[in-house]
Amino acid sequence: MNKDTQFLIVGLGLMGGSYAYALSKRGYHVAGIDINQDSIDYALANGIIEKGACFDADLIREADVIFFGLYPNTMVAWIEENRNLFKAGCLISDVSGVKCRVVDRVQELLKDLPVEFIASHPMAGKEVSGVKYANDQMFQQANFIITPTDKNTVTAVSFLKEFAKELNFANISILAPKKHDEMIGYVSQLTHVIAISLMNANDNPDLVNYTGDSFRDLTRIARINEHLWTELFFLNKDNLIREIDDFETALQALKQTLLDEDSDTLKQMMIISTQRRSRFDKKK
Amino acid sequence: MNKDTQFLIVGLGLMGGSYAYALSKRGYHVAGIDINQDSIDYALANGIIEKGACFDADLIREADVIFFGLYPNTMVAWIEENRNLFKAGCLISDVSGVKCRVVDRVQELLKDLPVEFIASHPMAGKEVSGVKYANDQMFQQANFIITPTDKNTVTAVSFLKEFAKELNFANISILAPKKHDEMIGYVSQLTHVIAISLMNANDNPDLVNYTGDSFRDLTRIARINEHLWTELFFLNKDNLIREIDDFETALQALKQTLLDEDSDTLKQMMIISTQRRSRFDKKK
Repeated sequence: MNKDTQFLIVGLGLMGGSYAYALSKRGYHVAGIDINQDSIDYALANGIIEKGACFDADLIREADVIFFGLYPNTMVAWIEENRNLFKAGCLISDVSGVKCRVVDRVQELLKDLPVEFIASHPMAGKEVSGVKYANDQMFQQANFIITPTDKNTVTAVSFLKEFAKELNFANISILAPKKHDEMIGYVSQLTHVIAISLMNANDNPDLVNYTGDSFRDLTRIARINEHLWTELFFLNKDNLIREIDDFETALQALKQTLLDEDSDTLKQMMIISTQRRSRFDKKK
Repeated sequence: MNKDTQFLIVGLGLMGGSYAYALSKRGYHVAGIDINQDSIDYALANGIIEKGACFDADLIREADVIFFGLYPNTMVAWIEENRNLFKAGCLISDVSGVKCRVVDRVQELLKDLPVEFIASHPMAGKEVSGVKYANDQMFQQANFIITPTDKNTVTAVSFLKEFAKELNFANISILAPKKHDEMIGYVSQLTHVIAISLMNANDNPDLVNYTGDSFRDLTRIARINEHLWTELFFLNKDNLIREIDDFETALQALKQTLLDEDSDTLKQMMIISTQRRSRFDKKK
């Protein structure tokens, strides 16, 4: 990764835009493609990209490294349509929240071409969207996960590690796509399912006057982009359903302690949750 | 509420200590009683109280206003033991997270005495305990709920309103104890049940390397004082069980959309959760 590297970001949303912004800030050459001309204009006007267009085959042909900030299925369709424009030696990655059903399809599409797709997942985000919210602060203290398959090279893994370090991600991990999707079913998708269900379970507009921070924190992610997350949930359906089932089992066990007035077991659950949660405190 | 009012805080934990600190900072006379001499010493040394002791009948006899920062059942027992020490005209309140099974018992204990117990609930807190963490910042933007019964006077309600305003609570509400406990079963207790169950559902210590902020936010309250919360859950058991059941119904409905690949219904749930959650954004 050197300053002559020509980056292309396809999809200047919150994540793609933040990648572009962070790279430009550090002196790299960054081009952008986005279906929305306003996003291109904004990114050009604010130094987030050097050049950009809604579509420009030359921008694709010139790129040494491409990051996709698109929805998974949109990305797969885009790659299928434009794969013959990629430069030989081009390295391609993404930001998708699910991996198995993305990586397999993309690597299959590119298998006879002299380019490499290696998936990665920046565990960062906000409840806003669009390039206008682009910032590179959200990568600090965030996790970056690289999910190589046996089709990927050591060079590509090293490149993504270097990229994540350059963008100040706090922690970089390597995880097989299958393990990634199991994990994400629990820590990300199940938590969103819970927040959505909690808001759907009760329709009392007065609650805002009575609520504390715990409810606010727990439901922050109930503000959700329904198109993206429906796609992500369906792409990881089997893992997510299993995680919902496991969670329900734990919830039922807790409810049983209430029915039985079994304070010892209930306290034990709280002790376990306290211990396990303490692992997740951010290092100051 | 004037500067000659003699306040007594019984139980100098996080909440009681923060009340004492906020009142002292504003120039009121505050005494403290706590079973722990270290807490008294700390509070005296740091100007949180003017005088204090593990127990001192005179401090009780002198108090115009008493706030209890004790666990609910401990408070009821304490009042039963010491009720004959209260000064005539004394106003007594609490910080308990449940009301029906607290207010009824205390008002019954005090029914032949010339004192008034009016319950209230400051919707603030932190995942730490003890007077050392006392601060009055946590009341800003927080809700304060007064839960009078037909045994309470308008004067007492007015006093608590004034108290909450003086401590800078953002929003003051009046709610019947029964309504309070139903509401708290949803916004507070159910959210803690969810966080505890989520941590109990999975024991993978490596997850910390892969997690994002959504998981951290949702499980912040999984760090929980098992003694206090077991007591609170049992005191509000019927409401809490009903809330768990309602939440499970919503969770099952969401799971069904995954099984059916019913994207329209799933998106609709996300749209509802987004709309409802937007009501809870804090006013800047």
